[in-house]
Amino acid sequence: MTEKPTEFPRHRPDGGAVKSLPDVLLHRRATRSFKPDPVPDEYLRAILALGTQAPSGYNLQPWRFIVVREAANRQRLMRAAFNQTKIGEAPVVIIALGMKNEWKALAEEVFREGAERRAGSRDWQKYMESAMGFLGTQAMNAWVTKHTMIAFTTMMYVAEAYGFDTAPMEGFDAAAVKREFAVPDEAEVIALLAIGYASGEDKPYGGRFELERVVFDERYGQPARA
Amino acid sequence: MTEKPTEFPRHRPDGGAVKSLPDVLLHRRATRSFKPDPVPDEYLRAILALGTQAPSGYNLQPWRFIVVREAANRQRLMRAAFNQTKIGEAPVVIIALGMKNEWKALAEEVFREGAERRAGSRDWQKYMESAMGFLGTQAMNAWVTKHTMIAFTTMMYVAEAYGFDTAPMEGFDAAAVKREFAVPDEAEVIALLAIGYASGEDKPYGGRFELERVVFDERYGQPARA
Repeated sequence: MTEKPTEFPRHRPDGGAVKSLPDVLLHRRATRSFKPDPVPDEYLRAILALGTQAPSGYNLQPWRFIVVREAANRQRLMRAAFNQTKIGEAPVVIIALGMKNEWKALAEEVFREGAERRAGSRDWQKYMESAMGFLGTQAMNAWVTKHTMIAFTTMMYVAEAYGFDTAPMEGFDAAAVKREFAVPDEAEVIALLAIGYASGEDKPYGGRFELERVVFDERYGQPARA
Repeated sequence: MTEKPTEFPRHRPDGGAVKSLPDVLLHRRATRSFKPDPVPDEYLRAILALGTQAPSGYNLQPWRFIVVREAANRQRLMRAAFNQTKIGEAPVVIIALGMKNEWKALAEEVFREGAERRAGSRDWQKYMESAMGFLGTQAMNAWVTKHTMIAFTTMMYVAEAYGFDTAPMEGFDAAAVKREFAVPDEAEVIALLAIGYASGEDKPYGGRFELERVVFDERYGQPARA
């Protein structure tokens, strides 16, 4: 495995300051239409490298990402995703996958290296055995979704912090995406992320449930005091 | 539904600047042990209010969060989570839930209000019907996990940006958590997030797979050029 990235842009492509997280959260909109302007390579690499700094269960990183930039491939992806035109427009679309089996073959590397780095238990074989027992109780479709979404969300926010616009998408035919992009059967196709620059007006804010409706105090159903 | 939050802290509790997202991503560690120092109410509210600005499919927000602060309840949660001591130590632990049915009863409100705000299709009934058709093809355990994890990840990063330490956890007995916190049967218990201030040294960095191993170009298996 490798170390943290040290080379990544400290400014937006236009020289502006990287947006703060509250700013990203309050101004991010799901982009409906993109300009053809490209995402510079150093920014795409930063989005991927910083995005994969996300945590995952036991550091198993069951996520994989396909970066689709070629126009013909974006057209193929668009057809597998109910013809959403933004996929054909955006200069970059990332396909996020969760691998339900591959992590098992990589677990020994992850646990052994975790012990060497003193990040995991020193008795890594016993720790791995206990982890494998726990993970055997988990529904793998939901488990890979859980961890892949941490990295996916991270990439979306890094892209927005650098001043790009994004569109997360869940509307696609997973079997078609797998067929078109040589994705193994064991994979869950979890989400798509288009990155670029918005064309036209932002989609208006759709509102959110009042906090009291979705946050409870101490037990389910007891509205938050805060 | 309601508008974006306008009142949230512009600084860390100690007066320091809110951390940038790259800074959060490079310095965040899964915290092993917490001090008893509390998370001030205005910060907890900001973590929740900004966290729920996360996007979700069709804006359905199938997430729910239980905020556990009382010591006796954190002890109960700790026992339902393999006795992880950090749950008993941290001043706040959030239980993230995904509701597999409740969103269906709320969909009309979401789609109608989306149309009123011009965020969704004006013909909201037809749009809702098509969404319901699509969602009917999705495995609900993975679907609620997908969307809840966007908000969960957002809360984790907002807390870190404000200078708190966090510990995301997936190790718990979901049935026991449901029993102890009056959680309905239809819920998926997805993850726990402890928030507070770290006690002792940070866990060392466990490393990440080289980008070339997890990012592919144009098709699965083709290592990234970048």
